[in-house]
Amino acid sequence: MQGAAAEDQGGSDKKPAVTSGEKFQKGQQSLCQLPIDDEQLQLAAAYVSDAQYNRNIQFETSPQAIRFYKLYNHWSTQGITYFFVLVDLLLGLFEDPAVYLLPIWVTSTVEFMCLLIFGLRLLHFSKITPTKVFWKDAKNICIIVSILLTVMDMIIYLTLTETGYFVVRWSRILRPLFCVNFTESRQLRRAFRNIRNTLPEITYVFVLFMFSVAVFSLMALKLFAKRKLKTGEGAPYFNNYLDIFFNLYVLVTTANSPDVMMPAYEISWAYSIFFVIFIIVNTYVFMSLFLAVVYNDYKKHLKNEVRKLVYMKHRKMIEAFDILKVKNGTEFVVLDSHWRQLVKLVAPEIPSSHRELLWRVSDEEQKGFVGRECFIRLADLLNIQVIQMKERVHPLENCMPNMYNSAVSQVIRRMVKHQGFRYTYDVIIVINAIFIGGDETNPLISKAEWVFLTLYLMEILLKLFAYEPRAFFAKSQFWNWFDTLIIIAALLGTIVNTALKSSGGYSSQQVLDIVFILRVLRLIRIIDSFQRFRVLLNTLINLIPTMLTYAGLVVVVYYIFAIIGMEAFKGRIRFYGANSSDPAAKYCGNLALKGSQFAALRYCKNNFNNIVSAFILLIELTVVNQWHVLATGFVKVTHLTARIFFVVFHIMVVIILINIFIAFVLEAFFVEYSLARSAVETAVERKIQELEMGDCMDHPAGNLVEAMETNENDFGNTGDKDLKSGLRFKIASM
Amino acid sequence: MQGAAAEDQGGSDKKPAVTSGEKFQKGQQSLCQLPIDDEQLQLAAAYVSDAQYNRNIQFETSPQAIRFYKLYNHWSTQGITYFFVLVDLLLGLFEDPAVYLLPIWVTSTVEFMCLLIFGLRLLHFSKITPTKVFWKDAKNICIIVSILLTVMDMIIYLTLTETGYFVVRWSRILRPLFCVNFTESRQLRRAFRNIRNTLPEITYVFVLFMFSVAVFSLMALKLFAKRKLKTGEGAPYFNNYLDIFFNLYVLVTTANSPDVMMPAYEISWAYSIFFVIFIIVNTYVFMSLFLAVVYNDYKKHLKNEVRKLVYMKHRKMIEAFDILKVKNGTEFVVLDSHWRQLVKLVAPEIPSSHRELLWRVSDEEQKGFVGRECFIRLADLLNIQVIQMKERVHPLENCMPNMYNSAVSQVIRRMVKHQGFRYTYDVIIVINAIFIGGDETNPLISKAEWVFLTLYLMEILLKLFAYEPRAFFAKSQFWNWFDTLIIIAALLGTIVNTALKSSGGYSSQQVLDIVFILRVLRLIRIIDSFQRFRVLLNTLINLIPTMLTYAGLVVVVYYIFAIIGMEAFKGRIRFYGANSSDPAAKYCGNLALKGSQFAALRYCKNNFNNIVSAFILLIELTVVNQWHVLATGFVKVTHLTARIFFVVFHIMVVIILINIFIAFVLEAFFVEYSLARSAVETAVERKIQELEMGDCMDHPAGNLVEAMETNENDFGNTGDKDLKSGLRFKIASM
Repeated sequence: MQGAAAEDQGGSDKKPAVTSGEKFQKGQQSLCQLPIDDEQLQLAAAYVSDAQYNRNIQFETSPQAIRFYKLYNHWSTQGITYFFVLVDLLLGLFEDPAVYLLPIWVTSTVEFMCLLIFGLRLLHFSKITPTKVFWKDAKNICIIVSILLTVMDMIIYLTLTETGYFVVRWSRILRPLFCVNFTESRQLRRAFRNIRNTLPEITYVFVLFMFSVAVFSLMALKLFAKRKLKTGEGAPYFNNYLDIFFNLYVLVTTANSPDVMMPAYEISWAYSIFFVIFIIVNTYVFMSLFLAVVYNDYKKHLKNEVRKLVYMKHRKMIEAFDILKVKNGTEFVVLDSHWRQLVKLVAPEIPSSHRELLWRVSDEEQKGFVGRECFIRLADLLNIQVIQMKERVHPLENCMPNMYNSAVSQVIRRMVKHQGFRYTYDVIIVINAIFIGGDETNPLISKAEWVFLTLYLMEILLKLFAYEPRAFFAKSQFWNWFDTLIIIAALLGTIVNTALKSSGGYSSQQVLDIVFILRVLRLIRIIDSFQRFRVLLNTLINLIPTMLTYAGLVVVVYYIFAIIGMEAFKGRIRFYGANSSDPAAKYCGNLALKGSQFAALRYCKNNFNNIVSAFILLIELTVVNQWHVLATGFVKVTHLTARIFFVVFHIMVVIILINIFIAFVLEAFFVEYSLARSAVETAVERKIQELEMGDCMDHPAGNLVEAMETNENDFGNTGDKDLKSGLRFKIASM
Repeated sequence: MQGAAAEDQGGSDKKPAVTSGEKFQKGQQSLCQLPIDDEQLQLAAAYVSDAQYNRNIQFETSPQAIRFYKLYNHWSTQGITYFFVLVDLLLGLFEDPAVYLLPIWVTSTVEFMCLLIFGLRLLHFSKITPTKVFWKDAKNICIIVSILLTVMDMIIYLTLTETGYFVVRWSRILRPLFCVNFTESRQLRRAFRNIRNTLPEITYVFVLFMFSVAVFSLMALKLFAKRKLKTGEGAPYFNNYLDIFFNLYVLVTTANSPDVMMPAYEISWAYSIFFVIFIIVNTYVFMSLFLAVVYNDYKKHLKNEVRKLVYMKHRKMIEAFDILKVKNGTEFVVLDSHWRQLVKLVAPEIPSSHRELLWRVSDEEQKGFVGRECFIRLADLLNIQVIQMKERVHPLENCMPNMYNSAVSQVIRRMVKHQGFRYTYDVIIVINAIFIGGDETNPLISKAEWVFLTLYLMEILLKLFAYEPRAFFAKSQFWNWFDTLIIIAALLGTIVNTALKSSGGYSSQQVLDIVFILRVLRLIRIIDSFQRFRVLLNTLINLIPTMLTYAGLVVVVYYIFAIIGMEAFKGRIRFYGANSSDPAAKYCGNLALKGSQFAALRYCKNNFNNIVSAFILLIELTVVNQWHVLATGFVKVTHLTARIFFVVFHIMVVIILINIFIAFVLEAFFVEYSLARSAVETAVERKIQELEMGDCMDHPAGNLVEAMETNENDFGNTGDKDLKSGLRFKIASM
């Protein structure tokens, strides 16, 4: 370890780790050093790499297939696939109804290129995996069918459009399938599988819930139909079973409360009991029941998924072990030289000192080989991101040691590291907040902005002077990155803005908006000063990767609904600009909407006339409030289509997706929260500190890895505690 | 057991259980039969009773105190207290602003009586518990202070009102304290304690959440203030920080989505990104975080509460054991004669056969005494409600055996018990549903109703003929009770209605409404035909007791807000009747509301002019939708008071109470759900069946009780499965 540390201080990662490695090999010459076949090593590396990244791909073991496989998993080919998946999805922006319309031949050519790439990717995959396995995999079939259908649809569309027919480009809803079905979006597929597994259970609750609404609707019909009541708009109130059903379904979402109750309530307070019971039963109890069922099932299926993953990882590691094993007495082992070569192949980016650390953890008794159990642990060890932040020498100290170590410099450095420095800047932030709130056309305030910018810039420079720059900008230093980026961006923005203003007296609103937002974002930093809030915020930040998976899922669902909505409703509702004097602007260009609540509330821009509007509208529907107004607006225009579309969207997204999201956050939060308080982190800290002090190579991190494995979940991120002592362990998410 | 079973068949519970008891005593004459002091027995019984009902009261051990204590726990004194707590709360209906105004002297006298009863109850309690303990207990102090304050307030109010001053009866908000602080509402107090314990944790998240809203508000100010935009109503849009903050706070509750976004969205879709991010961060992430924190803490505190309860129960049982113990060799034991006397004292309602069963379970080896561990288990055994439903002889068979056993009778009985009988009635219910949906003034339909009523009545009579009536109306037969009650009520209602109609051609709308609701309720029975739904519905029914505790809590919180709201806002907003032609009806009798959205939406009846209106309004606020319209309505009338009142209510009820409710339902549901699938129920069934066959007195239900204790929760109700074999175990909730 001493050797590794010394090597690291030199900072030369290119030099292979022979110094310390040789030392151990010399000590273990008793075991015969079998030379290892390069092809076998490549195969083993492929298995270990699969285990490390939880890839569940069955590949052929021929050297060529393995080379292909390596290429398949290379970031460049993955990146290309991702890029074209994105391009394919973004095509929606340029096709009719478009944000910016491109000629059909352009979009068609791009789409064809995307399909070509997808086809090539699949062909590539077919070279890797055994033919039988390839054709058994549902997602390959799904991709092939999607490509064929899309090509077919494109041909039909192009020929028929040329001949003047109206055709729907229905195959566009297949696009998210590419996003879901390419291997890279494993997480997304898992999330979808979870939803599919949860569906049967939800269905029972849903049927019971619908029955409950139906029974209440019948009661409402009997109670109110005879009264000939009028709603606020003068329409007949509760006189038709289907209307009542729709109204009460909307009431479950609380979107028309209390309006739907008012006409009856005005007659007698006793009728409000009906509505109160309805809301308690259907909104509170049933919706909680949905959440409970979804959460229960979600947890159960997640556990199964994780179990499968762990099993698969184990199997892959055993395969790798079986390739490299040599007999040592009664047991099979892997020699350290093979192990080192393997790790170098699997993770060439790992510095030799880190590799040495991993080896010490694996071969705890310094025997020169590892057994099966220890070898299997390698996949997890590789996932632990160790960031070494040794007390490096400040670059300035190297360049001009006299200046850097002078008395003034030392006073400054001590001052910056003092608590008071932080408090001073907290006070500055608070004062800044007041100035931000002020009117920026006031010259005092616009000058103050320069003062604040200078102060913040000074803070960063002082810190860079006091702390070692590489340590200051380490991956774990979220707030340092945040501060610096915000300040530099604000500085650039302010300079650009001032330049624009002084050059032509013209100030770009877009630039100004961005500058304003950057200024306000600066205030967030104050949270970092309170331990309690920092923990909460770190929890939230750690949830982001998981939430992004979820966001992918939402985008896929939204995309399908957006495409369908655009085909069904495009051009039906028009927006005439904010200050249009066109009389049609009053009813969104559709006479059916004349006098409707939709038009009265100025909802005209909520339409399906391009994919951006469609997404925003779908988000509004997800938020639920006023969804019935939006829905009835479209119902007035297109009748049954809209009714089905909006109700299906509501059930799919609000009842299922949102509850899964909450289950998602709840589970992730419980894991984060319990980890933040558990002894695991403390144990990790202690272990690393021990290791760093170099006095306990005989205490391997073995139990630490076991402790990690007990967190059987997708969200195994432990918090981002920065350890002042230097080394940092971070358990990467699966 | 044979003896006990025979005794039970005789059905004479009055005869003491000596037959079988003596038999065992004769077999165990080796141990000397010490006579037991009656006073000591009473003391032990008090301890056991406390343990059984989880009462945590420290009482004095003098014979007189124990007699007092027994009286204190008697249903009559408890009933009186509950009654006066209810009367005290209901006084709100008759005090200004009243639903039905009573003279002050009436309400004051009644309130004084209530206070007297509360005082007496407390005096009673002080006689039981040691003086020191009494004065240390916060809830006693709380009651005394509340009584004193209320008396003081009443005196001030009466004197000042007489002299013409305007005074506020502020002590009315103390009334719910009586509800919370009397021992009987232990569950309620526990729920409150849970909330109090969860508060600090929530506070941190809440501050962070408020900070987030504040930062977003500042951004919105910078982005939109300069644009001079107008809202849909033509008011200036986002030009003042406090207004923005309020609007964005409302947006978190989604109540003003998407309206609040539309003016900015009309300018550019890019601005909608601001609102979308706001909603994702504050509505979805923060609100989920609230739920996660509340749920996490709730679970933790619940576990502590249950642990304390179990410890307390254990201690009380040891106290009882120490009183009754006699030395047997090296260990202390309780003799069977003492045990029997004790059980008879603690639970005189238990029939001797059941007592014998409990004894057999306790003294598994038939030694004639029980050890400490077995004795402690008694508190749990007493809570297991065993309902014996032996194959009794049908009363008709006793009266006229010839007729009942005739061929025709047997065919009918077999027919009724056949599956087809059930399906026939399912079809009838579906047909009935269609008829209910029809117009009841149609003579065909009103005649059909009589046919259906006859059919249902016939069903019940046939079932009573086929099944033994006491078994048919057993406690566990929820659906039989439900059917019978609904049918009889509908029959009565229809008869009353027809009588009214034929007598004066007048048909009471109230009676008709009830009849309609009863008719519709009948349809619910169809759920019972589907196994899957039955399980779900039973889960829901089992949740009811827990939810009622929660409802109590909500009522307490609502009551306080209602009283405050009534004092602050009474008479400010007036409702002029549904069809009033008074011009003031257009603006709810308050010129400040002229042209407001509140008046336009006809919300005038949502006011604080009596306690019923106040409660309904508070429920509407809890449902959240349009709460900002209601709030701004009151803000227009009373400014700051209303703003504070409505925001505090929203934070208290929607953010805290509703999340706790969801945590409550989630937890209860998980427990119910896991129990429904666990082996516990099956184990219970098997055990009882074994016991009933009388062949396994040597297999005590010991492990069964242990299995129950592992369900460490408040909701330990196992499902209502009815065992056809006869005996039924039900584990009562704590």
